[in-house]
Amino acid sequence: MLSVSEIAKKLPASPIRKLVPFADAAKKRGIKVYHLNIGQPDIASPREALDAIKNADLKLVPYPHSAGIESYRKKLAGYYQGINIPVTENDMIITTGGSEAVSMALQICCNPGDEVIVMEPFYTNYNTFAMLSNVKLVPISTYIEDGFALPPIGEFEKLISPKTKGILISNPGNPTGTLYSKETMLQLGELVKKHNIYLFSDEVYREFCYTDEPHFSCMHIPGLEQNAILLDSVSKRYSLCGVRIGAIISFNKEVMTAALRFAQARLCSPALGQIASEGAIDTPPSYFAAVRKEYITRRDLMVTSLNKMPGVFCPNPMGAFYATVRLPVDDSDKFAQWLLEEFEYNKQTVMVAPAAGFYATPGKGTDEVRIAYVLNVDDIKAAMECLEIALQQYPGKK
Amino acid sequence: MLSVSEIAKKLPASPIRKLVPFADAAKKRGIKVYHLNIGQPDIASPREALDAIKNADLKLVPYPHSAGIESYRKKLAGYYQGINIPVTENDMIITTGGSEAVSMALQICCNPGDEVIVMEPFYTNYNTFAMLSNVKLVPISTYIEDGFALPPIGEFEKLISPKTKGILISNPGNPTGTLYSKETMLQLGELVKKHNIYLFSDEVYREFCYTDEPHFSCMHIPGLEQNAILLDSVSKRYSLCGVRIGAIISFNKEVMTAALRFAQARLCSPALGQIASEGAIDTPPSYFAAVRKEYITRRDLMVTSLNKMPGVFCPNPMGAFYATVRLPVDDSDKFAQWLLEEFEYNKQTVMVAPAAGFYATPGKGTDEVRIAYVLNVDDIKAAMECLEIALQQYPGKK
Repeated sequence: MLSVSEIAKKLPASPIRKLVPFADAAKKRGIKVYHLNIGQPDIASPREALDAIKNADLKLVPYPHSAGIESYRKKLAGYYQGINIPVTENDMIITTGGSEAVSMALQICCNPGDEVIVMEPFYTNYNTFAMLSNVKLVPISTYIEDGFALPPIGEFEKLISPKTKGILISNPGNPTGTLYSKETMLQLGELVKKHNIYLFSDEVYREFCYTDEPHFSCMHIPGLEQNAILLDSVSKRYSLCGVRIGAIISFNKEVMTAALRFAQARLCSPALGQIASEGAIDTPPSYFAAVRKEYITRRDLMVTSLNKMPGVFCPNPMGAFYATVRLPVDDSDKFAQWLLEEFEYNKQTVMVAPAAGFYATPGKGTDEVRIAYVLNVDDIKAAMECLEIALQQYPGKK
Repeated sequence: MLSVSEIAKKLPASPIRKLVPFADAAKKRGIKVYHLNIGQPDIASPREALDAIKNADLKLVPYPHSAGIESYRKKLAGYYQGINIPVTENDMIITTGGSEAVSMALQICCNPGDEVIVMEPFYTNYNTFAMLSNVKLVPISTYIEDGFALPPIGEFEKLISPKTKGILISNPGNPTGTLYSKETMLQLGELVKKHNIYLFSDEVYREFCYTDEPHFSCMHIPGLEQNAILLDSVSKRYSLCGVRIGAIISFNKEVMTAALRFAQARLCSPALGQIASEGAIDTPPSYFAAVRKEYITRRDLMVTSLNKMPGVFCPNPMGAFYATVRLPVDDSDKFAQWLLEEFEYNKQTVMVAPAAGFYATPGKGTDEVRIAYVLNVDDIKAAMECLEIALQQYPGKK
């Protein structure tokens, strides 16, 4: 009788967690580990965000409104209006991180057993949110050879059934860095409209686009007002991962009414994080320009270095700060562990995220890893050197 | 196809939410509304908590550890050790408020369709957490006449089935203010041991006890190490409701391993709130002594005033800052609305929480309201005067 639930036993552990003890052990042996495995930016937060916290003259920290602090929602609406998303403070619920935005969206829009189509490889925690919401994720494959481009619409049509409630995208994408163009988004919009399903669009990397085109949001698709659900977060935009502030945004009133109920059930999202996020709205464009330039430099260095290594293939990601990379190895899980457990070069090694955990289809991604370029240029150089030598020495190389 | 889920439609709205538009309208008419309806303390947070935020010299806000910031967990373990709960930093997961602690505990320990026994009246959101976890709450009645005391153990025995996974208590209790003695807790412990189920103990009001005995926790029950699950929060203890920091604490390793998986699924709980909470551990005992004295003064004033009103009965609550009160009215829902919509006395009125929403059994609590004594003494006096006159004028009085 006294045992944990079936779901607790089944919840997937992150593909990286297994490696953490090996990384800790390597550090104890005095080895420097370059963390290419996590999307934890090293960039400083805008001063405006941190000052807002320092200067908030609080006597106590009461519950904010369940939908989010009104002044924050108003300023946030202004941010979206500035990128041609004409929402008001009433079209959004402030969530506890992007995580809650995704899980709330699934809970609002899907009944147990419903299906949501997702492009694989995809952000691993989508699996967890879906499992906890009793929703089935139906994967549709994308391929490294064409930079993980959107599959032909016909492939989606094959998968859409009466149980399909929506399509979940991440744009720009984690773990691939793939950026969907306006044309791609319009195609998706047509499909979504045709079947009258939802388009759940995780756009937390919006500020990290490396083309000359502005980011094209699900909220920019004409006539998709009732279907588009924007999932957002301040985590990456302002290097505020720890404040746990996101948002669920839609013009669909029924969805937003339901979202408010879910929001009331957990009372509110964190007040201090909302204060920081409200301050962050005043971040000047120069901040983003500098961040963008820095990431482009890092990406170019990383992609060039990787593609020079024999047997390595890295598409050039146009967004976010990830690349999914093919390596000439037998099994990227084993390789990642070997890097931490057995390899060292000048007392250094690298930690990468094996890509199999980003795929739903068994056997896929076993020669791929996700690399996050969240280190400074010198560290990326050193990490790439390590990786190159590791690939020469790895016993399971192909 | 494009409609919100059944669960989103069924999620109960808070019993107070319906009244909010009426309160807003009253305020627009220039009426002062005394908010006795919510557990939002007006007491200042300890300086130690707020200074910790001001003085945190952050460059960015990275993800903290999924289980909680290690230094915070270590200090928090010290807090528990100080009240004879010998936990370490490894026996706890820091959660996003007490809300997440309750819902995570249900998800960890219960499979869909399992049952948890709860004393009614109970905190309304337990319903929501249970619904989202697909757990059935089985209510056992407690009665205003005996101060909502624990029912005889025989009553529990009647309800325990193979589906029963645990008993969920709130001690001191919301909405009743009832405090369980050591003897009561030991009785519950025996029952829980006998059936080898869990004791989920929500102890977020621990610091608000008005007897001379120290609070007796589920973690103090001898031999209950594998069954006791402590659910906690800093919200009320330090007037930090908005920071969203709680904890789930147990010596049961299997439970804590599962809790970590759930914690990883949502990445982390809020970093800034954890920093404030870590600072709060240094709050001197004089803070709590002053707060306790203040609440005893408020409670005494409120309970005495209420029991002087004809037809009103208010048991003397020994903990938290709530009382569930019987009023001589036809329907406390209607009365609460009438107070806001039609009544005024010297341009003032009161807002109370109708108690029916705290009961699971239909028809119960319809002549009761929950009153939170979270206002200063002068405001409580004025609010009690208003309420007395309202009860004389209310058309539905009994």
